[in-house]
Amino acid sequence: METLYIGLLGLGTVGSGVMNTLEMNRREIEADLGCRLRIKRALVKDVREYGHLQIPADLQLTENIRDILDDDEIQIMVEVMGGITPAKEFILEALAKGKSVVSANKDLISLHGPEIVATAVRNRADFMCEASVGGGIPILLPLQKSLKANRIRAIVGIINGTTNYILSEMTDKNMSYQDALAAAQEQGYAEADPTSDVGGWDAARKIAILSSIGFHANVTTDDVQVEGIEAVSQQDIQFATEFGYVIKLLAVAEQHESGVTAAVYPAFVSKEHPLAAVRGAYNAVYVVGNAVDDVMFYGKGAGSYPTASAVLGDVMEIAHHLQRGTTGQNPWLAEDNPATVLDPAELENSYYIRMIVDNAPGVLADISRVFAEDGVSIKTMWQRGNLEATAEIVMVVYPAAGRQVARVSEALKQLSCVRRVASLIRVYEEIPNADR
Amino acid sequence: METLYIGLLGLGTVGSGVMNTLEMNRREIEADLGCRLRIKRALVKDVREYGHLQIPADLQLTENIRDILDDDEIQIMVEVMGGITPAKEFILEALAKGKSVVSANKDLISLHGPEIVATAVRNRADFMCEASVGGGIPILLPLQKSLKANRIRAIVGIINGTTNYILSEMTDKNMSYQDALAAAQEQGYAEADPTSDVGGWDAARKIAILSSIGFHANVTTDDVQVEGIEAVSQQDIQFATEFGYVIKLLAVAEQHESGVTAAVYPAFVSKEHPLAAVRGAYNAVYVVGNAVDDVMFYGKGAGSYPTASAVLGDVMEIAHHLQRGTTGQNPWLAEDNPATVLDPAELENSYYIRMIVDNAPGVLADISRVFAEDGVSIKTMWQRGNLEATAEIVMVVYPAAGRQVARVSEALKQLSCVRRVASLIRVYEEIPNADR
Repeated sequence: METLYIGLLGLGTVGSGVMNTLEMNRREIEADLGCRLRIKRALVKDVREYGHLQIPADLQLTENIRDILDDDEIQIMVEVMGGITPAKEFILEALAKGKSVVSANKDLISLHGPEIVATAVRNRADFMCEASVGGGIPILLPLQKSLKANRIRAIVGIINGTTNYILSEMTDKNMSYQDALAAAQEQGYAEADPTSDVGGWDAARKIAILSSIGFHANVTTDDVQVEGIEAVSQQDIQFATEFGYVIKLLAVAEQHESGVTAAVYPAFVSKEHPLAAVRGAYNAVYVVGNAVDDVMFYGKGAGSYPTASAVLGDVMEIAHHLQRGTTGQNPWLAEDNPATVLDPAELENSYYIRMIVDNAPGVLADISRVFAEDGVSIKTMWQRGNLEATAEIVMVVYPAAGRQVARVSEALKQLSCVRRVASLIRVYEEIPNADR
Repeated sequence: METLYIGLLGLGTVGSGVMNTLEMNRREIEADLGCRLRIKRALVKDVREYGHLQIPADLQLTENIRDILDDDEIQIMVEVMGGITPAKEFILEALAKGKSVVSANKDLISLHGPEIVATAVRNRADFMCEASVGGGIPILLPLQKSLKANRIRAIVGIINGTTNYILSEMTDKNMSYQDALAAAQEQGYAEADPTSDVGGWDAARKIAILSSIGFHANVTTDDVQVEGIEAVSQQDIQFATEFGYVIKLLAVAEQHESGVTAAVYPAFVSKEHPLAAVRGAYNAVYVVGNAVDDVMFYGKGAGSYPTASAVLGDVMEIAHHLQRGTTGQNPWLAEDNPATVLDPAELENSYYIRMIVDNAPGVLADISRVFAEDGVSIKTMWQRGNLEATAEIVMVVYPAAGRQVARVSEALKQLSCVRRVASLIRVYEEIPNADR
């Protein structure tokens, strides 16, 4: 029986998950492949630090990347070390030597995916990265294959578990943003420096990857308009609940006739929408195709074993390709193929606006005039705090361009009766299917 | 530029969807394949009946299957005519001639899938059928590939749109079963003879296909214990709501150490469970793997365009295989590989039991004794109707074997104080992950 050897870069949460899952399901995996599958070497920073892990006897830890790159027996390299440097160099060299590579590295792929995939194809090797988006959720493969007969109209993801956990805690337990963030850090869902998660950057990298696949044109993180959840307040959460919505951090990519858009922002999502039911550390990717209509992929967006499931799914697919001699035939990203990215300020959206105003006669007339002057129509309005010096006014407006709404917001701030525009949050609405 | 020719069997809802979707997205599809894709001939019963359809000029309608089977230019046959005979013979002959086949025919595949797949592999042809389960939802391919490194522990599907529509109407609009069924028939969601849907047989065929793939052992429709929704009453729906559940027709397949189980039954599903949010004619397949934990695939379970999306996704995958000379290398079902199917009566489940009893002293003591004698523990109990001669008692019991609960139900009926055991409905609970 033949043996297929893997070189593993990184033995942290994901790397040890890959090792453990392979041990746990070795019988089924090898029965499917019809060959043995072994992790021959694992690259770590300090081999003395892994005494706590149960390492199989035939797995050799090494601190030297050459032990993997220069070993011709290793046909598949799994990169779960993270970071750009030196991961990128290691991957490019492995591909240049004809090794196929599986990676979970969203930072790297969102930045250098097209170059890496092209290098793989040139060298007749595979490069796959299902685990880079949505942890264990099968999403990149279904987008690349099952949904391929569609023109993808929109991809809407809840693809950052940390922020979804924080917003869920704020909703379910009436916690403040700060308390929910602290709880997430305690639970290990948020890092000590949570900027990348709560600021929306992690989601931006993932939507760049998703939209590049879905739209067949490269969207980079720089193309993504990013807004985090730091400004979402408990008041907003409560108004959302009252209006029949939940607030979610959405990563939204849309394909219009004239180009594509990609953005990350907190949004009101109707309680009836399937994305509204995605709670805690779960992720989901909602895809709208012009034939399939809407489909959603849901599951754990992170974690040792779920992520390992995706990594090993890719490894097994590559193993099949190796057995058939068909690696390097899937150019799922192309070089020099930038997407036409539209100006996000032109995008239309329904908005929720919360403001603190003087509790005095005529205020509502002044405010309504500002909206009317910029052609923004009010859909629902709500006022509370009648017995105090200030009142809270909340409005939901019909879809209007971001530029228009920003202008309204500026004009509101100029009104003497408006103390503060406290929140300006998009209301998620699906773009209509014009193709049929 | 090369042209790939398709022969289409059937030009009804799905067939015309395939034709229309190919026209709608031809540019993108052909750009991806790097070749032209044409439906050369479509088999119909009566060519004069298709005047209402916009048929492309180069698509020839025929009433003679030989025009497709004997045409060597046709490399892919798409079977969406339905039924067992003559679809099976047409498919087997096409495969024997080396044509690859895409089918949406769940009846046929649940009955003869292993024979058909083996015939395909023997003749180095592909046989794919994503559209046979869950309409446009990508589920068979992710099960076959992305989740392959898992030991699949459970597959739980809401895979019949008709029953989900009926149960949703009963829940949202307080309709009776009969009224909801009539509404479904009016909307075109239910057939004049709804037995196959409401009786659970359609779902049984689909769970047989899903579990055969997920468990790598063939489960037939005969292996599936089937119970429909005909007995679900508005009272049950209301109690479910009060207890924090919704009633769904579930298709449940589980893999235990000693074998597998497959069943279709209405069940209480916790409102917190992602399956609870699957409304109306939508479908969802919830998969539990020992590494990935839980993932869910959601979308439209039927319809012309959504189903065509799945059919054409398969066609495009086969086209890629043809271009690489790798058709016939995916034996996703094996012949002579029956699953070890466990006796459903041994399966443990939590149950909801509703009964009509005399409104008299001592009744509760009598009833409680019956449960205690068979070792079935009561979790929650609820009584209503105190001012009448009869009372309604509702209980939810802790997990117990179906055999035990059936015994309790019989014993209850023997009690003179029990007028009627009105309902006995399972409460869905996930099996624990013992693998890690």
